[in-house]
Parts: sequence; C-alpha cells; structure tokens
Amino acid sequence: MHPYRTHDCSALRAADAGQTVRLSGWIHSKRDHGGLLFIDLRDHFGITQIVVPSGPELLEKVERLRVESVITVTGQVILREGAQRNEQLPTGDVEVRAVSIEVRSNAEVLPFQVAGQENYPEEMRLKYRYIDLRRDKMHRNIMLRSQVIASMRRRMTEQGFTEFQTPILTASSPEGARDFLVPARLHPGKFYALPQAPQQFKQLAMVAGFDRYFQIAPCFRDEASRADRSPGEFYQLDFEMAFATQEDVFGVLEPVLAGLFEEFTPEGWKITDGAFPRIPYKDAMRDYGSDKPDLRNPLILRDVTEAYADSGFGLFAKIAASGGQIRAIPAPGAGDRPRGFFDKLNSWARENGAGGLGYIIFEENGGKGPIAKNLEADRVEKIREVCGLKAGDAVFFAAGKGDEVAKFSGLVRTKVATELDLIEKNAFRFCWVVDFPMFELNEETGKVDFSHNPFSMPQGGLDALNTQDPLTINAYQYDIVCNGVELSSGAIRNHLPEVMLRAFEIAGYGPEVVEERFGGMLNAFRYGAPPHGGAAPGVDRIVMLLADEPNIREVILFPLNQSGEDLMMEAPATVEPARLKELSLALDLPKPKPALSK
Amino acid sequence: MHPYRTHDCSALRAADAGQTVRLSGWIHSKRDHGGLLFIDLRDHFGITQIVVPSGPELLEKVERLRVESVITVTGQVILREGAQRNEQLPTGDVEVRAVSIEVRSNAEVLPFQVAGQENYPEEMRLKYRYIDLRRDKMHRNIMLRSQVIASMRRRMTEQGFTEFQTPILTASSPEGARDFLVPARLHPGKFYALPQAPQQFKQLAMVAGFDRYFQIAPCFRDEASRADRSPGEFYQLDFEMAFATQEDVFGVLEPVLAGLFEEFTPEGWKITDGAFPRIPYKDAMRDYGSDKPDLRNPLILRDVTEAYADSGFGLFAKIAASGGQIRAIPAPGAGDRPRGFFDKLNSWARENGAGGLGYIIFEENGGKGPIAKNLEADRVEKIREVCGLKAGDAVFFAAGKGDEVAKFSGLVRTKVATELDLIEKNAFRFCWVVDFPMFELNEETGKVDFSHNPFSMPQGGLDALNTQDPLTINAYQYDIVCNGVELSSGAIRNHLPEVMLRAFEIAGYGPEVVEERFGGMLNAFRYGAPPHGGAAPGVDRIVMLLADEPNIREVILFPLNQSGEDLMMEAPATVEPARLKELSLALDLPKPKPALSK
Repeated sequence: MHPYRTHDCSALRAADAGQTVRLSGWIHSKRDHGGLLFIDLRDHFGITQIVVPSGPELLEKVERLRVESVITVTGQVILREGAQRNEQLPTGDVEVRAVSIEVRSNAEVLPFQVAGQENYPEEMRLKYRYIDLRRDKMHRNIMLRSQVIASMRRRMTEQGFTEFQTPILTASSPEGARDFLVPARLHPGKFYALPQAPQQFKQLAMVAGFDRYFQIAPCFRDEASRADRSPGEFYQLDFEMAFATQEDVFGVLEPVLAGLFEEFTPEGWKITDGAFPRIPYKDAMRDYGSDKPDLRNPLILRDVTEAYADSGFGLFAKIAASGGQIRAIPAPGAGDRPRGFFDKLNSWARENGAGGLGYIIFEENGGKGPIAKNLEADRVEKIREVCGLKAGDAVFFAAGKGDEVAKFSGLVRTKVATELDLIEKNAFRFCWVVDFPMFELNEETGKVDFSHNPFSMPQGGLDALNTQDPLTINAYQYDIVCNGVELSSGAIRNHLPEVMLRAFEIAGYGPEVVEERFGGMLNAFRYGAPPHGGAAPGVDRIVMLLADEPNIREVILFPLNQSGEDLMMEAPATVEPARLKELSLALDLPKPKPALSK
Repeated sequence: MHPYRTHDCSALRAADAGQTVRLSGWIHSKRDHGGLLFIDLRDHFGITQIVVPSGPELLEKVERLRVESVITVTGQVILREGAQRNEQLPTGDVEVRAVSIEVRSNAEVLPFQVAGQENYPEEMRLKYRYIDLRRDKMHRNIMLRSQVIASMRRRMTEQGFTEFQTPILTASSPEGARDFLVPARLHPGKFYALPQAPQQFKQLAMVAGFDRYFQIAPCFRDEASRADRSPGEFYQLDFEMAFATQEDVFGVLEPVLAGLFEEFTPEGWKITDGAFPRIPYKDAMRDYGSDKPDLRNPLILRDVTEAYADSGFGLFAKIAASGGQIRAIPAPGAGDRPRGFFDKLNSWARENGAGGLGYIIFEENGGKGPIAKNLEADRVEKIREVCGLKAGDAVFFAAGKGDEVAKFSGLVRTKVATELDLIEKNAFRFCWVVDFPMFELNEETGKVDFSHNPFSMPQGGLDALNTQDPLTINAYQYDIVCNGVELSSGAIRNHLPEVMLRAFEIAGYGPEVVEERFGGMLNAFRYGAPPHGGAAPGVDRIVMLLADEPNIREVILFPLNQSGEDLMMEAPATVEPARLKELSLALDLPKPKPALSK
C-alpha cells in the first residue's frame, strides 16, 4: 500500500464500500458527535468524511491536532445511509472509518480560516498566500487560470501557431511605458531591461521566416497598479502572423476567443457567434462614446446638436453655436421613474466633472422636465424621433466639445443602462474596433503626432502618406473588446523602411532620430521582411472576466500587492553593499523630507 | 484570391497542375537558364520553384531583386517531367510559371548567405540573428525546441500536472548562485531579484494544496556562460508533487523523458526502456568515477589497490601504503594498439593534471609494458581477473587519494572508451543517481557541511539526525542523467520545521540563522505542509541532446552571446542619468586601470 494514499479525497464512491483505503490531506474541519469524531479530510481534489471511532488512542491523537494539519488516514470505506448521506459532496455516499492515523505536519494556530466564506484583509491574505490559496474560491480561480492558458495554447496550436520563448533579459524597448532595469554586473554602467512586451522579438521572428508565432508571454512594466493591471508583471497571449491581412488576424483570434469563452462559461451564457462586429473607431465614438464599447448595452448615442441650434434652451443653443455638440443618451422606460432617479444621475454627473445631466421625459403629448419647458415642441419631437423613443421613455443629454463630450456621453450610456438594468446578462459580447487614425493633432503644440502606434501600417501605404491630409489617414490598427474591456490592441505592422521613415517625418522626426531609436527593427526590415501583423490579448484580464473577479490579484498565484511588494517573500528588499559594489552601483536615496514644524 | 497566398511554399503537388495559385516568400536563389529565370521561393514551410518567363517586364523586375527579397508570385502550376523533376523537394513535381510578381520587401546586400552550408562567425550570426534563423539547420533547431516543449507540456498534463506561472519579480533566493537584481523604483534602496528557479514557489504551491505543479520555467543566474549554460536566462521543466515518494517522482519523469526522446529521435535509436537504472551515488563513483555516468560506455572501473599493496611496482605500492587507491580502467581490445596509442593517452593524462597513465597489456603468457615489468605475475593475473579481461586486452591505472582518483578514473574511462570506439551509438541511456550523502566533511574546516541541498529530506528523518553519524546519512536527493549529462537534480523535500532546524544545527547553523534566512519557507511549513518532492530537467540541455548541438546558443531563438550581450538589440546598454535618479541609484564605476608605462 502506498505510504500516503491509495485514493485522492474525491475518489471514493458507494461501490468502494468495504475496501481498505488510505487517504492523505488537510483536516478541513472536525466535529464531535457523541464520542465519535468526524473529520472532513481535504486535498486538491475534494473532501472525504473520516470517522474516528471512540477508543482512547486514535481519538486523543486527533483531538490534539489543529485544523489544517496534514494527516494520512488508513481505514475502511463505509456506506452512509439515508439522512447520513451528503449530497453536496461527490464522496457523500461513503465515509472512511479510521483504523490508523499518521500525522504528516502539525498546523499551528492559523492567521485566518480556510473553511467558510469569511472575508479577510488582503494584506493578510497575501502574506499567508499559501493558506489563502487553500480556500475554495481561490483554489478554483488559479486552476481556472491554468486551464484557460492550456486551452489558449491548444487553440493556437490548432491554428498552426508555434510557441517560442523570447528573451527576458533584453534591451529597453520603445513601447512607451517605463521599463524595469537590470544592472549588468559584467558590463559596468550598463543595464538590461525586462520586456514590456515581446513586440520587437515577435516581429523579428517573422523577419526570420517563422510563419505563425505565439507565446504566453510574461511582460513587465514599471507602472502603478490598477485593479485590472498587476504592478510589475502580467501575461499576454502574444501572437504574430506572416503574410497576413487584418482579416486574417481576426479570423484567427475570433474562434480562439469565442471557443475559450464557450469552454469556460456556464451552460446558457451567450457568446458572440461567428465573425465579431467590426466597428470603425469614428463610429464607436459616435454611437457608444467609447473606443471600448460594451455591446451588452443596447443604448446608441445620437447627435442632437441640430435640434438645439438656435433653440429656446439657451445653454445648449450656446454650446451648439460655439461649435460644441449635444449628444442624446436614450433611456427607454425611464419615464415613470421618480424625480429622485433623475436627481441622482444629475449628482453623479457633477461628481464626474460635468455641469449636470439634462433630460427630457416623453409623454403622450410632448416632453416633460426642465429642458422641455424651454425647448420648442417640434424640437422635442425631433429628438424623440432621432432617438427612436416613445412615450414613457426619457433621454439624457451630454454637451460640450469634441472628444470630451463623446467620452462623457459614453460614461452616461453605461450609467443609464446600468441603472435601468438594460445590460444583457450572462453574455460575453465581442467586437473589433478598427480604422484607428494614424495621426492626431496635438492640441498643445498644434503639430501632427502619432495617435497610437507609430509602427502600424498606414492604410494606403506610402501613397497615402505622400498625398493625403495626415489627419484623414487610418492605420491597420485595431482593438479587440469584450463587454467594454479592451483585451488587446493589435496591428498590421509597417514592415517597409521607406514608409516608416515617411510616417515619422510627418510626425516631425527626422531619419536620424528613427535610425537611432529604432535602428534595430529598421535594419532587420532591410534584409527581406514579410508583411505581418498580430495582437496580444491580456491573459489576466481574460481570466478576470471568466472568473468574474474585479481584482486581478484574485486570479494570480503569487501576486505583488498594490504597492508592488511581495508580502510573503518580502520583496523588494535591501541588499548587501557588496552586491551593489559588484554591480558598480551606489544608492542615491532621496533626502528625507524635513519634519514640518508645528 | 488572397493578396499574399493561396498555398504555402511546400503545398503544391502534381495534382495541382493547371491551377492558378499565389505564393509568397523569400527569394532563396535565382538561376538564369537561357532567357528563363528560375527562382527557389522559400517560406517557413518549404521551397517551390518559380519560372519567370522571358519577356521584358517581369524578368527585368526580378533581375533587379537581390536574394532574400520577399515577393508574391501569381501564376500557373506546371508539371515538371522526367529529369526536370526534383526529388529532393516535396514540391519537386511542379513549378509555378509566374504571371505577375509583386515585391513585398527589397533586400539589401546580406552580411552572409542564407542558402548553402557555409559557416560564419558566431558574433555576425548573432548580430543578424533574423537572417541566421532563416538557414535550414537553425530554423529546424528552433522548431524542434518548440515541439519538444509542447510535447513536455502534453506529457506532463497527461500525468495530471497543471502548469502555473510563478513570479519573476521576486525575492533573492537561497539557491546559492548569484541573482540578477532589479531596482524597485517605488521602494528606494530596495531590489527585486529574478528567480534562480521557482523552487520556493513550487514548494509553497504544494503547501497551498495544489497536487501536481509544473512549469516551463524561465530561470535566471548571473553567472559566467558555459557551452551548456546560457548566460542570464535558461528554461527548466520544473515540477513538484504532493504526497509523493522518490519512486513516485521517478515514475512520473521516466515516461515523460523516454517518450519525449522516442518522439524526437530517428527510427532505430535506442532509448532506456522501462524503469531507469537507479545507481547509488557511492556505486556511481566506484564503478564510473562520476556522479553523471554515461551508460553508453560499457567500461566498469575496478579497485585494484590490494593487488598493488606491497608489490614490486613501487610508485603504486607507496600510494596504497599511504591510504591512496589504485583504480583500473579496462581497455578491452587495446592490446594490439601501437605504442603511440599508449603514449598519446599518457600525454593526455599529463595535460589533465595527472602524473601519467600507467597500463598493462595482457598477452597469453602474462602482462606487458613498463608496469608489468616490475609487478609480480600473480598480481598481474589478479588484476586481469578482477577486470574481467583476457589476452589482447589492456588496462589503465589511475592512482591517488579518494575523490580525486575517483574523478580522474572517470575521465580516463570516457577517454579510453572514446578512443576505442566503445561508446554505444544512436542511443540515449538514462539513469538515476540516488542516495546522495546529506552531509560531507569540509576538508578545510574539518566541520560537517551540507553536501548538496540543505532542503532535502534526510533518509531516516529526525531519528537518523539524532542517532546516526551525520556522514553516514543519505538524503532523498537524486539526479537524472542521460548519456553522461546531468539533466536535473531533484529531491523529496524536507517539509518538517523540526527536522530542518536539526539538520542545520548539525551543519553548524543555529535556529536564529535558519529563521532569518529561510523564515518564509519555514513559516509556511508550520501551517500544514504535505510531504512533497520533484525535479526540474533543463529544457535547453534536452534540446541540445536531441538536436545534437554542442552549443546551447544553437537551440535558443535570440540568445545572449558568451559575454551576456545581445548584439542584435544592443543590450545591455547605458541609460539616461534621469532613469538612474528615478531608481535612487548612482553609478559607481570601477576606476580605470592606470596605463602601463613602456
């Protein structure tokens, strides 16, 4: 008999009754029932009930043990009958009557409980992560993450992709965020950088003639943490394809994502079927007030500037007259909401930096509310029509300049749909946002700047760069969005040195700057480069969506806390002066701030 | 029709004749044949011959192009007949007669050729790695690596293991090698370390209740490079199992490795079948003079100290008398080698630090050679018997103290077997070396020290530590060896704080030292830890064996050079002073050495 176990703690069934078995695991809980002691013995796989019969030796041994101690139990499988059966457990038809018990590891008093649903402060959970991870929800989250990643790998492989490992000790990259630096001991005064993404390496793999690259890639950014971004490191499903159009990239990623989400969501959930909607950036801003539209939200924004131009509602008339926009956010069914509903939204808007949130309630015979009082009836009617609303509905308005009002109306759209409970439930709705502008006007300098990624291929190529107004040129650049969460940017890359140099020229950078900063890539493109493109959906974000966790640390095995500290391993930490010396470095600590005098 | 390709360059067959197709790829070579131009068009998948018909437009366009330019060819598939067929290529039955050609990327003059077998300096190959990787052997090596890793993943998953990602920004670890440090910008004066291995995290995953962990894990050591170790980063198949004995670990890894090697070696190669031999450390040193025995080598070392004690061969008699050993290295069939063979080995031995390499040649009527002249005939006969040799064979001798002579005789064993061509060909022979001693005597201090890993479980546990002579205690520590290459160490870990404290006490460390240096792990073991163990075979080394490459850089996509530099991306590099300031660091460069006066 194996010294630790013949079965795991989820294996035994009624058919095993009578067998002598051995189980090992953690004491999940102990219950005393009239001389008999019941133990829920837990391992990775499940829980089995152990009965410790009365009799001094075994009972005493077990009574001394704290929960979470690890034991090996040898005993006989006994059928549980009638009310004694536990239908919650796969092993609930049986229990194991202990004949001998071996203690493998004594647990001290725990900082918090594993059994039960209680919440504990995150700092405590992170310090004792190895205990926190035993809790059911965390254990399942981490297993889900592993299964999601395994499924990604399988799906990418099925699509003809090969996984490669790109360097982690590498050069500073031009992605724009801050790199982590690693002092190079053997090269005094020089530093490696950790990759913000394997962007350059995956493009070089294409130049090297590999056809379809992917990697579950660790990426590193020295940036403040956010709920959906871990400080320090994160993972992306990084991929790139040679001889691929934008549609080829979409054709690869759509079945991977749809398949993945189908695999890991409960029966009955709805997932975008077939090709995901492609929404041009301009349309997304117009219809959803966001380049990350949540398509579970049925509301479509409308431009009603014209309806307010020269109207009796002076505030909006003035905004319209000065080149601003008034956008309508429909609120179907909101007409019967009490006044407090509208007041609350008004306060919310003020908290979010707007002057307020005007609205009209549509009734059978016209509009109601502060705006409608001053707005001509035919204009009210026109707004109702444009928005496709009817009596009993309402509409909110956001007013202001260009992008600002677009973005705010997008916020209102989400808020209103949430308040009215219009967001589709149990659904993952994907879309592509496409045709991002290549350039934008820098409002401070008045100059043309890259809007997103200088390395994307401009639509129309060199010809467009040479003949079109730069602000009208779109790039083969796209985002994949799910439920309003951006999972990834991506692009068809600019693989032509002459097009890249011209694009940078438009943005005000001479060839010497480009050669100096991006010479590595540029050179590679001079020895025969295939057209190529890809994307890199965030693994952690996908797992967050699938686990329905709002905090990224709930889906990472051993995360840093929000301040970038590992409370369990005590990192970062000071190092011996000799280590610094070896690295040709000295500390140059900020001067302590002078104490404030009272 | 797709803008880039309807088929890849390895797809077309005779049955496709007559079709209009489109291919994209690199111009591998061009050949002019009486007005017709032939192009070998290459992509990731293969090569297809393109015929560019005479006629000014196409021909001129193509003639201007350098090899390695990327083009798209549209044309008709034509059957090649008779001698025109190329049986070397899967596509050799057809060619594509170009109707139109689009240039995707113009190649400049290459630093070295992609086609052909020529060798180029490694520095040049690394600087232009994206060109080097297009060469057939490199391209295949990297694909092999990817396939090997994918197969490892599949095999581990089939064995019930789950892949987890452990942190890369973490705390300095007690593995013993030098960590890379990463300054923590938000914590002035503090540093993260890159993991030398996920050792602590995988053990903590066991404490967290996960049952079978694995990871294709990036590991980082700031150490000088070796042929079989990349400077900076390397990968290992890291795994750990809960409630596992040493035999359980072996039972998991054996089918993974044997299956892997079977999958990726040519038909007819021999791979250790079934359970791998388990060789106790002591026996390995005795029989093979190495703890990494190459079992393809049939030679077994013999101790012949006794045969020399008080003998007529004074040198060895003296060594025997002073407590040294004389070890025999059999050389079957070497009897008919010319004198030069023995002289050459003697020189080799001197180059390797020995005084020389004595030998006896066995003839029908006794021994021959300088030693045999002075050694009594019955002793010569005894040596022959002990070594299992016969007339026509020879034997070499290594003499000296303990470990030193053991190791040297191991070197001789390899050398002699190589010279005599006795090493089994086309075979991968695995073994486990087990029962490593827990402690050893530090010859400098005369104190007891850990021999290998202080975190392995001593055989016999606390009882052994409390009652046995420490130098007689073995650990549950093992190596997996293939063809004389150590693929991995591994161990059943010490998961009991009291046993760990006692083991450190024997090695001279008080509890305060252990708590201070290894408190994290020790604490975790206090809240219920399962018995556990594992190993971590080196991925790069396995791929080197399978690709039959002696240099690790030949099986890594974008490796650092031997000095730890990325010549392509130019890392490491200096950074802006502002970046250092931000990290609360200043350079503290070594003073330049004074110039030598003439």
